[in-house]
Amino acid sequence: MPRDPKYDCLFEPIQLGPKTMRNRFYQVPHCNGAGSEKPGAQAAFRGMKAEGGWGGICTEYCSIHPESDDTHRVSARIWDEGDVINLGHMCDEIHKWGSLAGIEMWYGGPHAPGMESRAATRAPSQIASEFEYLTYPHEADEDDIRDLIQMYVDAALRAERAGFDIIYVYGAHSYLPLQFLSKFYNKRTDKYGGSLENRARFWIETLAAVKQAVGQNCAIATRLAIDTLYGADGLEVGDDGLKFVELVTKEGLVDLWDVNIGDIAEWGEDAGPSRFYKANHQKPWVKDVKSIAKAPVLGVGRVTSPDDMVQILASGQADIIGAARSSIADPFLPNKIDEGRLEDIRECIGCNMCISRWEIGGPPMICTQNATSMEEYRRGWHPEKFAPAKDPCSVLVVGGGPSGMECARVLGERGFDVHLREAADELGGCMRYVQRFPGLAEWGRVTSYRQTQLDKLKTVEVHTGVGSMSADDILSYGADRVVVAVGSHWSTDGLSGVTHSTTPGADAAQPQICTPEQIILEGKEVGDRVVVIDGDGYFTGASIAEYLADQGKQVSIVTQLSTVGTYTHFTLEAPNLHRMLHAKKIAEYCGHWVEAIEPGNEIKVRAYNLSRDGYLRTTEPRTGALPRTAGTHIEELTCDTVVLVTGRVSNHELFRELKSRKAEWAKEEIDAAFHIGDCYAPRMIADAIFDGHRLAREFECDNPQFPLPFIRERQVWGHDTYPALGANGG
Amino acid sequence: MPRDPKYDCLFEPIQLGPKTMRNRFYQVPHCNGAGSEKPGAQAAFRGMKAEGGWGGICTEYCSIHPESDDTHRVSARIWDEGDVINLGHMCDEIHKWGSLAGIEMWYGGPHAPGMESRAATRAPSQIASEFEYLTYPHEADEDDIRDLIQMYVDAALRAERAGFDIIYVYGAHSYLPLQFLSKFYNKRTDKYGGSLENRARFWIETLAAVKQAVGQNCAIATRLAIDTLYGADGLEVGDDGLKFVELVTKEGLVDLWDVNIGDIAEWGEDAGPSRFYKANHQKPWVKDVKSIAKAPVLGVGRVTSPDDMVQILASGQADIIGAARSSIADPFLPNKIDEGRLEDIRECIGCNMCISRWEIGGPPMICTQNATSMEEYRRGWHPEKFAPAKDPCSVLVVGGGPSGMECARVLGERGFDVHLREAADELGGCMRYVQRFPGLAEWGRVTSYRQTQLDKLKTVEVHTGVGSMSADDILSYGADRVVVAVGSHWSTDGLSGVTHSTTPGADAAQPQICTPEQIILEGKEVGDRVVVIDGDGYFTGASIAEYLADQGKQVSIVTQLSTVGTYTHFTLEAPNLHRMLHAKKIAEYCGHWVEAIEPGNEIKVRAYNLSRDGYLRTTEPRTGALPRTAGTHIEELTCDTVVLVTGRVSNHELFRELKSRKAEWAKEEIDAAFHIGDCYAPRMIADAIFDGHRLAREFECDNPQFPLPFIRERQVWGHDTYPALGANGG
Repeated sequence: MPRDPKYDCLFEPIQLGPKTMRNRFYQVPHCNGAGSEKPGAQAAFRGMKAEGGWGGICTEYCSIHPESDDTHRVSARIWDEGDVINLGHMCDEIHKWGSLAGIEMWYGGPHAPGMESRAATRAPSQIASEFEYLTYPHEADEDDIRDLIQMYVDAALRAERAGFDIIYVYGAHSYLPLQFLSKFYNKRTDKYGGSLENRARFWIETLAAVKQAVGQNCAIATRLAIDTLYGADGLEVGDDGLKFVELVTKEGLVDLWDVNIGDIAEWGEDAGPSRFYKANHQKPWVKDVKSIAKAPVLGVGRVTSPDDMVQILASGQADIIGAARSSIADPFLPNKIDEGRLEDIRECIGCNMCISRWEIGGPPMICTQNATSMEEYRRGWHPEKFAPAKDPCSVLVVGGGPSGMECARVLGERGFDVHLREAADELGGCMRYVQRFPGLAEWGRVTSYRQTQLDKLKTVEVHTGVGSMSADDILSYGADRVVVAVGSHWSTDGLSGVTHSTTPGADAAQPQICTPEQIILEGKEVGDRVVVIDGDGYFTGASIAEYLADQGKQVSIVTQLSTVGTYTHFTLEAPNLHRMLHAKKIAEYCGHWVEAIEPGNEIKVRAYNLSRDGYLRTTEPRTGALPRTAGTHIEELTCDTVVLVTGRVSNHELFRELKSRKAEWAKEEIDAAFHIGDCYAPRMIADAIFDGHRLAREFECDNPQFPLPFIRERQVWGHDTYPALGANGG
Repeated sequence: MPRDPKYDCLFEPIQLGPKTMRNRFYQVPHCNGAGSEKPGAQAAFRGMKAEGGWGGICTEYCSIHPESDDTHRVSARIWDEGDVINLGHMCDEIHKWGSLAGIEMWYGGPHAPGMESRAATRAPSQIASEFEYLTYPHEADEDDIRDLIQMYVDAALRAERAGFDIIYVYGAHSYLPLQFLSKFYNKRTDKYGGSLENRARFWIETLAAVKQAVGQNCAIATRLAIDTLYGADGLEVGDDGLKFVELVTKEGLVDLWDVNIGDIAEWGEDAGPSRFYKANHQKPWVKDVKSIAKAPVLGVGRVTSPDDMVQILASGQADIIGAARSSIADPFLPNKIDEGRLEDIRECIGCNMCISRWEIGGPPMICTQNATSMEEYRRGWHPEKFAPAKDPCSVLVVGGGPSGMECARVLGERGFDVHLREAADELGGCMRYVQRFPGLAEWGRVTSYRQTQLDKLKTVEVHTGVGSMSADDILSYGADRVVVAVGSHWSTDGLSGVTHSTTPGADAAQPQICTPEQIILEGKEVGDRVVVIDGDGYFTGASIAEYLADQGKQVSIVTQLSTVGTYTHFTLEAPNLHRMLHAKKIAEYCGHWVEAIEPGNEIKVRAYNLSRDGYLRTTEPRTGALPRTAGTHIEELTCDTVVLVTGRVSNHELFRELKSRKAEWAKEEIDAAFHIGDCYAPRMIADAIFDGHRLAREFECDNPQFPLPFIRERQVWGHDTYPALGANGG
């Protein structure tokens, strides 16, 4: 289908200083774990977006000098000629498709802990990082400021040599230029502190020096937090933020404005999770910049709808559609608009699983919606291309949750004859209750995207509402191969990783003890006073607590961890999640675990405090350290209902029975059976989808139950082992 | 000086199965951040210990298969031929010195989050990790168990090919073999669960298979937690632990027992920090194993004294001296005993800074005492060899804290003519009060080691009690070069990284407001009720609280972080630290910060709660999320004294004045001046020592104020850039 003309404006070229970008789709800098050390993964990941139609594609934050070293986190680096070579490959891959490559030059000041280089950073004033808390910079004097500007210039020259078209001076997320601009960081009294003009001086001098060095050939961009949301202590739009834009515009130093809000410590105000922020939530700030800037302006905000994109351009909010998460979930979003295939767009769900891996530090990025993300190079996976089945046999996929849907979809794309059978009346598996938690409606896109794709695939039949299949049903079904994907459930007896045992008194067969599924999917009744026992530490405990608080219940959470929903720290949901818990008066018993639940007219939950996140000990040490029970106490909580979010258990019975009857397979002409996703082992939704995808990609290998090797990008001593870009690691 | 004959027993060879170890000094497996991906760093670091006299040297935990992937943490890996090559270099470096190389084969089960490989693990039972909390294994069936054993065998064959002499089946720290053995993990009812014999089956079958595969040429070792300290739920010495040793001994499967205690979640019970455990604290457990094992036994426990080592052998506690931290702090410990240079032993202080970097995940290991640790390859530093000064000029080092002492020591070793001048009556700088905190006496070795070395160096004059030097004093001193190392101090006005501002009402010039130095070094009086404001998050806040609680004060701590002393989680001090706080009734206000201190007869400290670790916000968002002040409340704490541990401030005035008078340098024949350590930017003690060391090593480079580049071990696309081992990155 051809492109709908109403989207033509998205495909108009735009001038960025000396460069022309072919359309208005722009992948802003975002992390992926590849940095400059995994050049194959970096080049293939970014290049895939160029292939998918993004007109401009950037690195993640890219350190300009070893002095600014974010280890244990992974940034790109443009420190030396090796980095020029490695990032050059990314540029080449992007240029192949006629797109522009951008580099985000980064110096972290106090937010760069320097754990690899062991260097101390320089910054406008000497105050410890509010993000890293033990990292202090040196207060730069004027010689230091000259050094810092020279670092940007030298890095820009290396970047130009690597082939970058767009060169950023990165001042958002509380990094160095913003530290000079913001009164929160800058306490100086010399010509680099005090008045706005003085505080802007460093940023402006840096832009001028970089433009002087590379502005002839490269577009100069700057990423600016127009409001750090600190109030008068920081940088506010309408005040310093916009005045700074005016100053820079007057000097004509910038060819592209990349605008956002927030700081580093709470950067979920920028990369807003869908739990708290709708798409395009930064519109008010971005359009203020657009109203005064002369150079093109872009902003982000998880925008996935082409109509919203048109509106952003038409309303004068911005000139270019910036995207990080939307481009991760679907690298081919622009092409799909261009080809009139809007229903094929794989929309970001705003879970921020991608970001969590950067926050953890080190692992490759993953994406809940796009299982091929960061697998382009090391496993040779293309998000839109699938190897045709060598022998397109028939496959029965039992269970239509995330893993089963994804497996069926990819098998279908590959040309297998697939039957996907789901016991319930609708597809989704765990998503059927997850997407009903407060704020998680967008997570339903996990199901809706796959439902749409399965509907389109002629190779896949979907049967819902068929009830649970037995081993007999499967054996007699007539499929050549069977994939069991029947998920997991919340433990009904309070089994947890905290104690490695069940919880005395926990039994969800009783009316006063519930699991989240029972409440949401079965409508099990919940009393007025509720205790949620959360051994999970991600979203479920907090979500069911909020769900019940919204019904007027009085809710408490007990968790072994030192905060509720610890993993939401990594997804940037934590700050607003904790505000929500406070605002909804949900009581938090962190660092506690349940000794026993005493049933009765009123239930008593006896919780004891732990010495540390989830660590339970009963033995007295022999060696003179403090008794393990030192300072313990018991909290006795009274309630009407207990909700068990203690741990998950695979639904493994079906596969076990099937396997135990392997002798019957030949007779039924069953060649192989596999189990995937949560029914193999409970895991993140992203990993369950990945597992289904992987099985389908590797379906013909010797034993697809277990993953094939992947390319590991590391030096092997004395060997140049790099395969060509795009080679498959199989 | 020749070796004292009483230490001869430490140098007797010992048979380990088919291999002979040249002496009794053995570096047990420990992490260093190099893994299999940084083969230069790995080989040079381990090889240095062989050069220093260790007879056996091991890898860190080494994954046997991508299914057991500890990313975000860094393990070694023996997954493929690239790893064989890379780890082979480590073996070569060790063999050069006649020592044996060991490899610790690791499979993590639920404790391996698989963030790089994205694989799920297998384990005896399906219970989430108590350490990783969101990671569930698959419950292995008998086919899986066969697969797992085969993984060990295949890895052992690769290890043998790489050149390893000692091959471990790693069952301590709660990894797979112990998971089968322990009732805490193993809930099976088949032949691999239930009775001790059944629970021991997996470990024994694995040992037998590995011995069968490589036992002809390699010694088979196993690392065993003889007591997981869980009481009857786990594995206790005298019960299952010793019975397991008996079973294995009967079968003759093990050539070396590496014995410790504890689990993974609280493995500071093994790697005991000096704050809570004396050296050799595991003696009771190790000697029980020795009493029944036929094969040689070793244990660890931060042993640094040769007399203690002799006692360990003589008393029948063990046959071999195992060491991790002692060997990091001094790779040449064995040679120094051999050469009768006991006073040169650089003793571990038990701070566990080394371990903290593994816990953080990713960064190279660092050591407070040994600044050359992990710099052997990338910076070409040898802990005992120093390049002679090219031009041995005179150097004045101002300030005898950790950084100044280390700088003077290394300059002295290099042959410079050094004067080290310290204002106070004794060397030590911040260590003068740090080592007086409860439990931190061993940290005093930072000073005592350097004091001894400085005393021995003919090139260094140490002057203490000289009072503060002024810029005039320095200018007229007559040195060619000046190094300013005058440290930092705790902010006296409550400046913190939390608010980036001072704290209203905080003024340590007032009698009721103190800093830690004022209390310990100046004896400033403290009232009965104390509030410690801890913005630091490492040891100081908790330590001064304990110091005052021990004097009978009633102490509260306010911290923005979600636990007191968050960094002590990484040093393994946290569990006992938190027990101590509970036991000493020190009240904890975590996730709070101080709005104001109201002086008066009774001081009032007004603390408000934060939404997340240290994140302070005042602006209301425009976008419909929860108000930033949602659920905030104020705690009003009444006390007699407030202790400010809010943040540190460099003592930068001296260097600034010196620099401002640069015009006078030529006249005074001063060639250059530098500032190092905390007076440049406050940092960890380890990093302050590193900075002093580095400056002295790089003293002749163009601008030694800033570090030279170091070798980065990464693949450069299409280039085989590896320099030869030992090349200097300068």
